[in-house]
Amino acid sequence: MIKIAVDAMGGDFAPSSEIEGALEAARDLGVGIILVGRSELIQAELDKHRRNRALSGDLSWRSSHIEIVDATEVITMDDPVAIAVRRKKNSSIRVAAKLVRDGQAQALVSAGNTGAVMMTSKLVIGSLPKVDRPALATVLPTLTSQGTVILDVGANAECKASHLYDFAIMGSLYSSVIVGVRNPRVGLLSIGEEEVKGNDLTKEAFKLLRNSSVNFIGNIEGRDMFTGQADVIVCDGFTGNIALKTSEGVFEFIMRLLKHELKATIQTKAGALLTRPAFQKFKKRLDYAEYGGAPLLGIKGVTVICHGRSNAKAIRNAIRVAHDYCTGEVNSKIEASLGAAVMASHDGHR
Amino acid sequence: MIKIAVDAMGGDFAPSSEIEGALEAARDLGVGIILVGRSELIQAELDKHRRNRALSGDLSWRSSHIEIVDATEVITMDDPVAIAVRRKKNSSIRVAAKLVRDGQAQALVSAGNTGAVMMTSKLVIGSLPKVDRPALATVLPTLTSQGTVILDVGANAECKASHLYDFAIMGSLYSSVIVGVRNPRVGLLSIGEEEVKGNDLTKEAFKLLRNSSVNFIGNIEGRDMFTGQADVIVCDGFTGNIALKTSEGVFEFIMRLLKHELKATIQTKAGALLTRPAFQKFKKRLDYAEYGGAPLLGIKGVTVICHGRSNAKAIRNAIRVAHDYCTGEVNSKIEASLGAAVMASHDGHR
Repeated sequence: MIKIAVDAMGGDFAPSSEIEGALEAARDLGVGIILVGRSELIQAELDKHRRNRALSGDLSWRSSHIEIVDATEVITMDDPVAIAVRRKKNSSIRVAAKLVRDGQAQALVSAGNTGAVMMTSKLVIGSLPKVDRPALATVLPTLTSQGTVILDVGANAECKASHLYDFAIMGSLYSSVIVGVRNPRVGLLSIGEEEVKGNDLTKEAFKLLRNSSVNFIGNIEGRDMFTGQADVIVCDGFTGNIALKTSEGVFEFIMRLLKHELKATIQTKAGALLTRPAFQKFKKRLDYAEYGGAPLLGIKGVTVICHGRSNAKAIRNAIRVAHDYCTGEVNSKIEASLGAAVMASHDGHR
Repeated sequence: MIKIAVDAMGGDFAPSSEIEGALEAARDLGVGIILVGRSELIQAELDKHRRNRALSGDLSWRSSHIEIVDATEVITMDDPVAIAVRRKKNSSIRVAAKLVRDGQAQALVSAGNTGAVMMTSKLVIGSLPKVDRPALATVLPTLTSQGTVILDVGANAECKASHLYDFAIMGSLYSSVIVGVRNPRVGLLSIGEEEVKGNDLTKEAFKLLRNSSVNFIGNIEGRDMFTGQADVIVCDGFTGNIALKTSEGVFEFIMRLLKHELKATIQTKAGALLTRPAFQKFKKRLDYAEYGGAPLLGIKGVTVICHGRSNAKAIRNAIRVAHDYCTGEVNSKIEASLGAAVMASHDGHR
């Protein structure tokens, strides 16, 4: 049975969202859950949930595999990452990562401090042998496709072209195994479509990708990120983070501005009431909770990082992604692909 | 009298938008206009406009100062920039830039190929003595402030920290003289608020900016670009271009998705009809035509680059910006500020 270590202390609604999401995942996916954090808090929350479910006649939780592992410390969102990771040896994030390292769990799911989860995963679990730099990926909603995987969105502020190549391999496997895209098209995030456009990094990465086994479709501009033209978009972690956060900012800005204008007159207010179902469907389509968190690709194990504001559904979907990642054997496929790529490039040099 | 050279062949609706916008600017601002391009085309369009205006009893154009300068070639949007700039010696962009270089015009306004306008301006007009790298700026709409100036959005894919410092000085002057902000707050676009977050470039630029006369408020994340927290945002041209194009992409994506959902049922369709005024006000608020184009800051003259899809209003507003830039003496203020900064840093070394 696949076991997932869930950081129960991570998000803004911890441990409530974490425990509800974990219970749902355990029931729906038949996955084993290890809840990591302050055990008395977790036990109390768990009892409450079980009581409520029992009262409503739902006994499905009875057969679920839920364990608790105690961790006395919590890394908060405001903790300086490097210091907290070093000093809080008994944090829920670190204890959960150790469970993965020691083989007691196959994956770690956390809605905690993203920087701390990434650093702890790299330090405690470690990278896959052929991966120089693990990368944080996320799935963007698009108009046409199932969703576009973009990486790196924040694990590596400085990258070399060879890292972007690794990201292309890892992102392609994630897209095909988890998102379900056949032969995913890979784009390089840059500032013009032609090969000569971009900075030194993208120009070099362009050459590497063009001469590889990756299904490379060339440069992708910022404005085409959401069109579904590419199934995978690769970039350095600084650029990816800027692009992702900018998208969030524009979305919030547009929603606030629209709300403001819709409230302006009685007529538009009435119209807003009528259009509410459309807005709700629209929001659902963009809801990060549907996409199940951001995987850190390239570590010896599985780490899925959720938004700090994650609700139970988001946690449940992140556990589903972690589960699919394990059963889909993404890591051994990454190793095989990077191994093959290394061999191919050696062949090329003969 | 300030004279503005307008590339009449540049945009998607050239020469019609250019000529209509130029006529409006000439009338409203009392500025002299030199229309540059295929003279027979320009003359025919000009005659048409004048006839229409005369028929409608509008004789205001009579006193405007409009000249035509012939340029036989046109650089298209699809032309490869480096080759077109070198080979098309008689392009409307180059002829207009020469007018600025030779003092026959004070500014150049073009809705043509952005790369070609930037390169030609740098080559033909040249940079201000103390400016290493001219930068392309644009004004973002925000919820609260008059608008946030962001630079560089595409002139320099690779930058040093000292360039970002120059951008901060130039952006501050643009914000105060053209946008009308007192003591503009300058933010550095990065991937976290703390000084230690970012890539090598932003970390070094952070130190430079903190120890300068710039009103520096620290790092700004992508999601805060539209909040009005900063009046000026500085970044390298690769990052700025990605952020800007991503914003455009998100906006288009959201509008298309909303339109799709609003058409789904009769109820939401009726609602959409009622909310139309709100959407129109909303669009007006985001309309690039209101903001008057993107200035290339740091050249010995003034170049304002408009969106390829510019209508007459956008051209008119770009001419207004170019006019205000000249009367506000932005360039001599940039020189004075950069000179003072150089002296201050020498003092610091004593």
